[in-house]
This record gives sequence, structure tokens and C-alpha cells, in this order.
Amino acid sequence: GFVGADLENLVNEAAILAARRNKKSIGQTEMEEAIERVVMGPERKSRLISEEEKRLIAYHEAGHAVVANAIPEADPVQKVTIVGRGQAGGVTWFRPDEDRLLMSRRKLLATLAYALGGRAAEAEVFDDITSGASNDIEQVTRLARTMVTRLGMSAKLGNVVYGQKEELIFLGREISEQRDYSEAVAQQIDVEVRNLVDEAYKQAQAILKQYRKELDDVANLLLEKETITREEFEKVFPSPIAKRSGTPQVT
Amino acid sequence: GFVGADLENLVNEAAILAARRNKKSIGQTEMEEAIERVVMGPERKSRLISEEEKRLIAYHEAGHAVVANAIPEADPVQKVTIVGRGQAGGVTWFRPDEDRLLMSRRKLLATLAYALGGRAAEAEVFDDITSGASNDIEQVTRLARTMVTRLGMSAKLGNVVYGQKEELIFLGREISEQRDYSEAVAQQIDVEVRNLVDEAYKQAQAILKQYRKELDDVANLLLEKETITREEFEKVFPSPIAKRSGTPQVT
Amino acid sequence: GFVGADLENLVNEAAILAARRNKKSIGQTEMEEAIERVVMGPERKSRLISEEEKRLIAYHEAGHAVVANAIPEADPVQKVTIVGRGQAGGVTWFRPDEDRLLMSRRKLLATLAYALGGRAAEAEVFDDITSGASNDIEQVTRLARTMVTRLGMSAKLGNVVYGQKEELIFLGREISEQRDYSEAVAQQIDVEVRNLVDEAYKQAQAILKQYRKELDDVANLLLEKETITREEFEKVFPSPIAKRSGTPQVT
Amino acid sequence: GFVGADLENLVNEAAILAARRNKKSIGQTEMEEAIERVVMGPERKSRLISEEEKRLIAYHEAGHAVVANAIPEADPVQKVTIVGRGQAGGVTWFRPDEDRLLMSRRKLLATLAYALGGRAAEAEVFDDITSGASNDIEQVTRLARTMVTRLGMSAKLGNVVYGQKEELIFLGREISEQRDYSEAVAQQIDVEVRNLVDEAYKQAQAILKQYRKELDDVANLLLEKETITREEFEKVFPSPIAKRSGTPQVT
Amino acid sequence: GFVGADLENLVNEAAILAARRNKKSIGQTEMEEAIERVVMGPERKSRLISEEEKRLIAYHEAGHAVVANAIPEADPVQKVTIVGRGQAGGVTWFRPDEDRLLMSRRKLLATLAYALGGRAAEAEVFDDITSGASNDIEQVTRLARTMVTRLGMSAKLGNVVYGQKEELIFLGREISEQRDYSEAVAQQIDVEVRNLVDEAYKQAQAILKQYRKELDDVANLLLEKETITREEFEKVFPSPIAKRSGTPQVT
Amino acid sequence: GFVGADLENLVNEAAILAARRNKKSIGQTEMEEAIERVVMGPERKSRLISEEEKRLIAYHEAGHAVVANAIPEADPVQKVTIVGRGQAGGVTWFRPDEDRLLMSRRKLLATLAYALGGRAAEAEVFDDITSGASNDIEQVTRLARTMVTRLGMSAKLGNVVYGQKEELIFLGREISEQRDYSEAVAQQIDVEVRNLVDEAYKQAQAILKQYRKELDDVANLLLEKETITREEFEKVFPSPIAKRSGTPQVT
Repeated sequence: GFVGADLENLVNEAAILAARRNKKSIGQTEMEEAIERVVMGPERKSRLISEEEKRLIAYHEAGHAVVANAIPEADPVQKVTIVGRGQAGGVTWFRPDEDRLLMSRRKLLATLAYALGGRAAEAEVFDDITSGASNDIEQVTRLARTMVTRLGMSAKLGNVVYGQKEELIFLGREISEQRDYSEAVAQQIDVEVRNLVDEAYKQAQAILKQYRKELDDVANLLLEKETITREEFEKVFPSPIAKRSGTPQVT
Repeated sequence: GFVGADLENLVNEAAILAARRNKKSIGQTEMEEAIERVVMGPERKSRLISEEEKRLIAYHEAGHAVVANAIPEADPVQKVTIVGRGQAGGVTWFRPDEDRLLMSRRKLLATLAYALGGRAAEAEVFDDITSGASNDIEQVTRLARTMVTRLGMSAKLGNVVYGQKEELIFLGREISEQRDYSEAVAQQIDVEVRNLVDEAYKQAQAILKQYRKELDDVANLLLEKETITREEFEKVFPSPIAKRSGTPQVT
Repeated sequence: GFVGADLENLVNEAAILAARRNKKSIGQTEMEEAIERVVMGPERKSRLISEEEKRLIAYHEAGHAVVANAIPEADPVQKVTIVGRGQAGGVTWFRPDEDRLLMSRRKLLATLAYALGGRAAEAEVFDDITSGASNDIEQVTRLARTMVTRLGMSAKLGNVVYGQKEELIFLGREISEQRDYSEAVAQQIDVEVRNLVDEAYKQAQAILKQYRKELDDVANLLLEKETITREEFEKVFPSPIAKRSGTPQVT
Repeated sequence: GFVGADLENLVNEAAILAARRNKKSIGQTEMEEAIERVVMGPERKSRLISEEEKRLIAYHEAGHAVVANAIPEADPVQKVTIVGRGQAGGVTWFRPDEDRLLMSRRKLLATLAYALGGRAAEAEVFDDITSGASNDIEQVTRLARTMVTRLGMSAKLGNVVYGQKEELIFLGREISEQRDYSEAVAQQIDVEVRNLVDEAYKQAQAILKQYRKELDDVANLLLEKETITREEFEKVFPSPIAKRSGTPQVT
Repeated sequence: GFVGADLENLVNEAAILAARRNKKSIGQTEMEEAIERVVMGPERKSRLISEEEKRLIAYHEAGHAVVANAIPEADPVQKVTIVGRGQAGGVTWFRPDEDRLLMSRRKLLATLAYALGGRAAEAEVFDDITSGASNDIEQVTRLARTMVTRLGMSAKLGNVVYGQKEELIFLGREISEQRDYSEAVAQQIDVEVRNLVDEAYKQAQAILKQYRKELDDVANLLLEKETITREEFEKVFPSPIAKRSGTPQVT
Repeated sequence: GFVGADLENLVNEAAILAARRNKKSIGQTEMEEAIERVVMGPERKSRLISEEEKRLIAYHEAGHAVVANAIPEADPVQKVTIVGRGQAGGVTWFRPDEDRLLMSRRKLLATLAYALGGRAAEAEVFDDITSGASNDIEQVTRLARTMVTRLGMSAKLGNVVYGQKEELIFLGREISEQRDYSEAVAQQIDVEVRNLVDEAYKQAQAILKQYRKELDDVANLLLEKETITREEFEKVFPSPIAKRSGTPQVT
């Protein structure tokens, strides 16, 4: 799993933690604990994970981090851990560098690529793949679909919104999306979503092949320390390109 | 975003504002504040927007305004601002020149074009596109679809209404549209909607290429002043064509 | 808009009007007011319509009337007005010449043609079309669809009923039509509905081209008087063919 | 319209009529009135029908009767009338010759043919068709569909049942049929239903061409007497073939 | 109709019958009455059936019995009757020879064949078919469909389950099957179901042609006695092949 | 049937059993009884099964066990029995060798193969197949579908999730999956699911052909003892390959 956290909404949670500890201000510690607790649930300590699975998880998370660090518009890596939370074997945390209003097409493409970095690492290193990427795949599908059907970011499908959102409050709650287009367009959407995802996966694969040594180093550091900070990560793998904010700029 | 305001319904709101200020009549100020408040929500001041994003928003809004000003049947620009409201980064306000009963095909085509002026400006200037046009795309899709399926304004689909509106009041509320046509017609509708949108986008692109200098000027003025009036806008970009009411006239 | 009124149901309404005026019997005046009030809503006086729009509406209504007057089986024109009611810019009233039990295929084809006379007039005179025909198009679509799917009046689709009516009373009310035929038949239905509508529109166009001068005369008379009676209408455009009841007769 | 009445269920109704008339037993008169009242609603006397419509209705009903009388397996004609009831312009009554448990394919084909006799007569005599056959078409469609999808009576679709009946009692009432077959089969069903109906219509047309004089005679007698009995009908058109019960017999 | 009875569940019903008759134990008579009553409803005596229909029903039931008796894996015939019950004209009773846990593909194919024996007999003898087979066809369709979609018994569709059962308890009751496969698979399923049914019908036809004399004999015995026992049946038509349990055995 | 048990959740059940027997700790016996009771329901003793069916069930269960024992990544066999429980004729129990967080593609393929081992054994030995595999086929279909549509484990369909899970709580409960892809993708999914299942079945067939003697031995031992332990099973059929945990390892 990987996460892009929204800092502002979590201040209250952090305030509660600080109060419990009789602190007068919210420290960095409370802030980070608050984020992790809200987004991922409490740490999963009871579960015993085999060494084989730990190794696989370490490479999966290292894959997210390494791919992100090699693409200019990707959010910077904040922390990487193989201490599981909830259903996730490990987590790679990203910190968005600003309070952003707009998402550009290039930044969204970068997100697709690093989200698939985990699976790409499994395939590269183990010659097999696991159910550990199921959550990544869901996020990637949803994002690519939004780009194509709601943001007009596929040239093949144009500046058109496809599908009508319906909200039916009816004892229970159902939010479905009514198809208002033809089968021919449905097929074009599938092809375009697939293209976006395939391109992103190829980019992730290429990056991991290029930085395979660094991937091994990050995975080994994770196996050794279980959790590594941005600084520890960047010492092992300094960003090979100049990072950018992701907001389009006049060239 | 761009907005065509309905003045009449807002008088009450303006009266309340005037009363709060102990005024005896509704002034222009109260009227405009009332409109903006009702349609767009209160101004969003707290959010800090980066200079990069401000620049992008300025070009997006300038795009709407410049395209509208270059098409005879388009509503005249009333005000342009990059002060955000609600989810919108900025707003371009249009003032319909009369209380219109009928909408002609040409006027609707003009509306499609200026609604896409924001995205066209992003692509022209930044060589990337953003999620900032998502609302414009939704409006454009809905309008083009109405022209094709309910107003008989596509020669390829004829003077036929497609789809039956259904209203099901059932604890919650659902208004869906039942498809009463074949897949072949669904595909023709998709093609025609797409054609209308593509033509409108091409028109917007051509206008912005032709008036690129004026686009830059408007965007820069917006970055400087944040909000500009019709007069300020038309000083920078006087309308290059004779505006028309949009009601068909005997030629 | 155009209307075929059902006189009988409106007597009560007329009686109320007569009572209010202390009349002992229902006069022609009360009867006609009752019809118009029930079917179309009260006259819309408050709205200010531009001269341009009035001209367009006059031609639209004149189009309905002229086309109807040139087809033997069409109902005779009763009154034409450009005084708007509800959403309609104007109204052309038809009076069915008898209390009819059966509708023949030829009479229904005539109805399709004069219903499209409004739009055909707009296109002929203004070289643009407006949203003013949306209601006509809905009526035309519903009628053509009924001919094809419920009355066996398309040779291509035979003496078969297509689609099952379902009534689901369930807090709110929903009357939907369940598709019980294949996609291939759905496509044939679309083609046949389209053919009926296209043929009707071509007939309307041909009639208006042939009687263009009379169309101009009726429109001008409407602009001058706002409402014209059957007699005034037939003075400007005497029916060029022998009218027929529309019931099939042995030839 | 045409009707095959179920005598047993109507005895009670007849008993009530007899009681009202102080009769001690149910007579033939009460029985027939009971049937007609229950099945068709009370006679419609108030409506004034034009001579033109009466003539059309007379031919329509004569068409049902003449076609039925020329097919061995068709139920015998009991009464024909052009006195309308409910929505129907006239009625042709059939009396099934026995309390039948089974329906053979041949008998059902005969029913399809005489049900279309009304429309075939309109087309033959008037060179136009009317909405008066809408009820006949509904019955014919339902019967042909049942033969194909529930009785295995189409060789092309075999001894298979198509579609699952569903009953959903849910405040209101909905009985729908869920499609459990492919689009390819849906198309075959449409083609087969259409074939059955087309063949039946052709048979009706051929019979009416062959017995056109008798058709005219029956229609004229109807116009003269409004209602004719089996005996009066058979005097004008004695059955040209030997009638059969419709139950398959060893040949 | 034909029936495979589940003896165990009916003991209670038989006990009640025995108690009413002051018997101390359940006799064979009570047992059989109980079965017939529960499964088919009470005997239908009041209805008068024509000789023609009786003859057709006799052949229909004889068809079930003769086909079953000529296939090794089919359940043995228990009783045949032309005394109607409920909607059925007659009944052929089968007694499963053991309390079976598994159904083999061969046994299910045998069941398809004898279920269609009734219609095959009608077609063979009368050169027409009747609505009397509608229930048989429903059972055959359901069984063939289950073999193809839930038991993996069609090589063309493999060891895959098609369609998801859904149960929606919602005031009323609805058990529907959601299609979770493509149109291409839906078509393959239709073809395979059809193949199973067609092969079974051909087998039934071939058996009845081969044993036509025996079919006549059984039908005549039924017309004479109305109800015949297993022993009476097997005297007229001794099983021409060795019966088998239907459970696969090592060969 | 075959089962992969989740030990942890069953401890409470075992504790109850131990308490009933006045034991101070949960023994192996209580643990296993608890598992079997919870997962499969109580043993079915009352039912009398024919020798023929017992033989078939013995081969079916032996098929699951032998196939599993010949694939490195398959879970080890724990116990095999032909004593029925609930609807199942027999059960093969598997004990997962560790508390696993991730499932690799290879391990899932192994599971597909041994799940089909029962049917493959029936076909190999009896030249017929039975309804006894219906539950296996359901599990295999669900698993293969999950691999293709939710885990991105089919190269042809890529790292994309297909179908949206919907939960509608509404008096009753309905969890359906909304199709959000085109017919073309639906067909690809069907083909891929089918390929996974076919490959697995072929693997099972090949293994059973190769180890046919061992299959006979295991089946005969089951017929003799009814239930055999892991040790008894492995004495008759020692694993011919080195078992692996199924977690991908660096090669």
C-alpha cells in the first residue's frame, strides 16, 4: 500500500494525542501518529509473518518508493515501513509538497506509475506476483478511469464526461454510476484505461531495472530496520532527477 | 468555471444584504454580491494557492473570456476573477443581454466553445492540462447531449427525442433517463455529442491562437488585479467582431 | 405547440367560469377560455418578449397552421396565437371535426407533418433552429413510436406489439415499458420511427416552400393581431385541397 | 375485438340477473348478458359514431367472423355486433365447442389467423388501416410468443422454455419475465413470432380475397341489423369447410 | 407430467391417512395416496374430458413410460394413469431405486429423454403437438441448464459455474440469477442446452419408432383401465434392456 | 469437497468441547472435532449410501488428495474421509503450513488444480462424471475469477480491477457486483477464467494418469477405513516432489 495524506483534517486527532500526553502543543510525533492511526488503523503486532513474506513485503514497499523517487512530478517519499497495519503488509508514506488545488495530467501519470511500483518489484525480483498488490490495483484503476471518464485526459475520448452519478438514499445507501454511453464507447474507455495502466507499469518496470541495485539496498535496509525515514531512504537512493511540483509551468 | 446568472431570482437575497447595511434601496453592490453568494458560495480566502497555480487559473479564466468575446452569439463577459469560491479556482461571469425564451442552435454552439476556452488556454500555454476543467466538461457534455437527444439539433439524429425521463419519488429521489433506443442509435448519439464538443474545442483553440497576445494580457491583468470588470477586460481585448443577440433573424 | 382538445371533459370548467360571470348558460367564450386554461395554463403576460423572438414565434405557429391546412386528413385549424402560455411561446389550436373512435394511418401521418410545421418554418425562414420545437418533437416521437410498436402501422415490423407496459405502484408511481425484443428489432424500430418522422418533416418543408408567401402573410398577421381566428386564418390562406374526415372510406 | 368466453365462471353473474327479473331459472338471455357484461363492460350507447366509422367497424368484425368460418380448427362464431362496448368498436363472439384441456398447434394457428381477420378486412376494403386492431395485435403477439417460448411449438427454437417468470409482490404488484437467454436467441424468438404472425395474416388475407363477396354481405347485414346471431351469420356465409374440434386425431 | 417422488418426507402425510382409517400401521395404500396427494393435488374427477383428449393423453403418458423403460439408467416406471390431477391430464410415476446422493451425467441424460417421451409420442402418432407438454418442457429446460451452468457437464463450457444466485428477501421474495458472463458465453450456453434437449428428443423419437407397437398397446391399456401398475405395464412392454442404477461403475 | 481451515477462529468451539469432557486443556481431538463441526456440519450417519456411491466418493476424495500431494505449492493433505457431512459425500482436509498474509499466483494455480482432482478422478476411473463436483466447481470458478478481475493475475487483462462491488442494505441484504466494463472485456474475462480452469484440470488429469496406481491404493484404503490420516495417506502415496511454502522466493 501507499498513501497520500491530507494533513489538515488530522490536526484534531493529533491534538487529542498531545492532550493525553499532557503536552501544550502538538509535536511532530503526535502529528505523524495521528495520520497513521486515522488512515491505516493501529499497527498489527500480533500477527507473525514468516521471513519469506517479510522479504517479499520489503521489496514491494521499496518498489513504490524507488519508482516515485525517479519521476520528477511524483510526490516525495516520507517514510517506508514493513510493519503491517490492518490488511496491508507494509506502507510507503508520501508527503504532498503543497496544498494543491489542481492535478495535472503529468502528475496523475506519475502517481499511476509509483502505485504499480510494488507489483513491478515483486515480478522483477521473485518471478511471481502476489495478492499484496490488490489494493494498489484498485487505486490505479479508479484513478485511470477518472482521468478518462471525468477529466477529459484521454485524447481518444475527448473533453466529454462519461456516465452519470446517481445517488439513491433509500433506507440503505447506494451510489451508482449509470452508463449513458454506447457499447462502442465503453470499449474505448476500457482500452484507454488499460493503456494508461500498461504504460505506467512499463515505466515502473524500466525504473526498477535501471535502479535494481538501489531497490535491493532499500529492501535490505527495510528488512534490517523495519521502518526507514525520508532521510535514510534518500541516503540509500538519492533522487536521480530534479523533482518538480507537478503544477504545469510555462516552458 | 463560468456562469450565466439569472438575475430575477436573486433580488430577495440582495434585499437582505441591503437591509443589513441600513440601505433604503438595493444597490448594484448588493445585487452582485447576492448573485455571487447564491451561485458560487462565499469567497474562499483561507486557502493558500501557490503562484504556479494562480498563473494557471488566470490563464484558464482568461481563456473563457477571450473565446466568448470573439464569437458573435456568445453572452458578453461581465467580470473575471481568480479569487476562488467553493471548489472553483476562479470564475468568469457572463450577463445574458435579454430575458430569453428561445435558444438557437448557433447560440448553443457559442456556449460550448467558450465553456471549453479554459482548458484550451491551459493546453495552449502550459502544454499540459489539469483537473480544473472538470466542471466545464460536465456542463459541455450535458448541453451537447441535450442538443442531440432532446432538441433535434443534430441532422444525423433528426427531429426525434431519445430517452424517456422517469421520476421516481420513493423516500429518496431518483430522476433517471430510461434508454428507449437501440445500441446503434446510442453509438450515433455518442458520435454526434463528441463531434459537437470537438468542433467547439477546435474553435476555442483557433481563437486563442489568433488572440494569444490578448490572452496573455488578460491573464497578466488578472494576476495583477485578481478581479477585473467588463470595462477593464474590454480595454485589454476589445471585441473583434459585432456581438449578436443569438435569436435567429431573417437574413 | 399545437393542441387537439377534448371538449367534453372541459364543460365543468366552463360552467364554473359562467357561474362567476352570473351567466345562466355556458357561452362559447367560457368554453374556449376553459379549454385554454386547462390545457395550457393561464396566459403569460408578465414576460417581456423581444421583437426578434416574437417574429420567430409567429413563423413557428404559422408553420403549424399552414402545413395542417394543406393536408386533406389533418384536423382543421381553430385559432392561432403568439400570446404565450406556460412554457409555450405561442399556440395553434385544432378542432377535431367529430368525436372519433378510430385513428387511421393516414390521419396519423398528417398529424406528424403539421406537428413539425413549426420547426420547418424556422429552418425555412431563419436558417437556424431553436429550442421552441422541443415539445413538438416529443409529441412526434411518441406518436411515431406508438404507430410502429403498438398499432402495427409499419409494414417492416408487422402486426406485432413490441414492449410490455408495466405499472408499478410503489409509494411514488412508475410506468415503464419493459423491452421484450432483441437488439435487432430495437434497431428496426428506431429506423422506422425515424423514417416516419423524416417523411413528415419533408412533407412539411415541401408545403412551406410551396406556400411561402402564405406563410409570410399568416406570420405578419399574427405579429399584427397576436391572435387570429379560423376565419381570419382561412382568409389569408384558404385551404388549397379538399379536407377529409380522416376515417378510411371505400374508394 | 373477439372473445373466447369461459362459461362456468359466469353462472353466478347470470343468477343475479335472473333474480333481478324474478325468474326461477337462469335463461339463455341472462347467461349471454352475464358473459358480455363481465368480459366487455356495459354497452356503450351514449357515444355517437359516424356512418363512416360504423362501416369500418362492420367490415372489421365481419373480417374476424369470415376468416374463422373458413378454417377447420377455429372456434365457431357465436354472435357478431357493431354495438360498441368499452373501448371496442364492435365484438365477434366465439363459443368453444367443448371444455378443452389441451390446445394443439393447429388450433392455435387458426386462432392467430381469425384474430387478424379484422385488420385484414380493413386493408382489403379501405386501403388504409386503423387503431381499431390494436387489441387484436396485442392478443396475437402474446399468443405467438407463448407458442414459441413456453410451448415448444417452433421447430427452430425446439422443446425449450425461454425466459423465467418472476413474481415480486412489493406493495404494488409486478410480474416480469427475466430474460435468461442470449441476444442471438432473442433474435430467433423475434423472427419466429413474426413468422407465425405473418403467416396468419397472409392466411387471413387469402381467405378474405376468396370470400370477398361474403365479407361484403356480412358487413352489410351488420350495418343493417347491428347485431347478428350465429344462424344469421351462417345463412349469409355457410362454412365452406368441415369444422373440426381442434384436438389432434389419429389420421 | 412425470414425477420422481421423495418417499421419506411423505410418511407423516401417510400416518394421518392411516389414523383417519383407524389403522394401526401405515399401509402401502396410505403411502401411495399420500405421495400422490402431496405432489399432484387431489384427483380431478369433475372435469369431463372428450374421448379425443383422453386418447391423446393416453399416448402422451405411454410415451413417457415406454421411453424410460428402454434406457438402462432411467428410473423404473411405477404407475401410469390418465386420471388427471390439478393441471395435468395424466401422470407417469417413477420410483427411484435407491436413496441417491449423486447424479451422473448419463442418468441425467436418461431423464431428459423420458421427460420428452410424452411430446414425442404426440408427434409420432397424431402429427400435431399440444400444450400438454408445457410442464415437461419446463423441467427439461431447467435440468439441461443446470447440467451446463452449474454441474460442468458440457465439455464446451468446461468446469465453470455460470451465473450468480441472488436471494433478495424484501417484503415479497425474489430469487434471481445474476448474469456474470459475456454475451458470447450466453450464446454458448443456449447452444449447449439446446443440444442436450435435441439429442434427448431424438433418442425419445427413435425409441418410440422402434417400439411403436408397444406404445399403442400401453396407450390402449390406459384407455381401457385408466390407471395401470408397474406389473401391468411391464407385461405389455417388458424392459428390452438391462436396467442400471445410474451410479457410475468401474468398467 | 475440500477445505482449508482457519485454526485460530475455532479455539472457542474446541474449548467448549473440552469443558464438556471435563478436560483441563484443549486436546488435539477437541480441536479437530471443533473444526469439522464448524466448517462442515455434523457427520451424516443416518443416510445409507450404496456401495457403488461409496466407491465413487472414495475415488473423488482420493483425487483431491493425490493431485495436491504432487504439486509443490499445494497445501499438505491433513485427513481424507468418505464419511459424509451435510451435502458433501466426503471431505479432504488441508492444513495450511503457516499463517499466510499473501497468496502468490503459483499457489493459487495449485489450489485450482487440486480442487478439480475429484472430478478428474471420476472421469479417469468411471468414464462418467457426477453432481458430486458441483461445490468444487463453484470454488474454482470464484477463485479463478478473483485472480483475473481483482488480483491482476492474468497478463491478458493487466493490472486493472474489473467490476465494482456494491453493498445495498435494504431490509434484506444484497451484495452485487456492478459491471463497469464493456462486452469485449467481459468476453476476455470469460476466456481467461476458462483458460485458468482448463489448465488446472489438465494438470489434475496428468497427475492422476501418472499416479493412477497410487490413486487406486488411496481409494481402496478409504473404502476399507472410511477415514485416513495424513500419515496413512503419505504411507500409501509419499509426496513425489519437494513441497514448498508457496511464498515467492528469490531464485
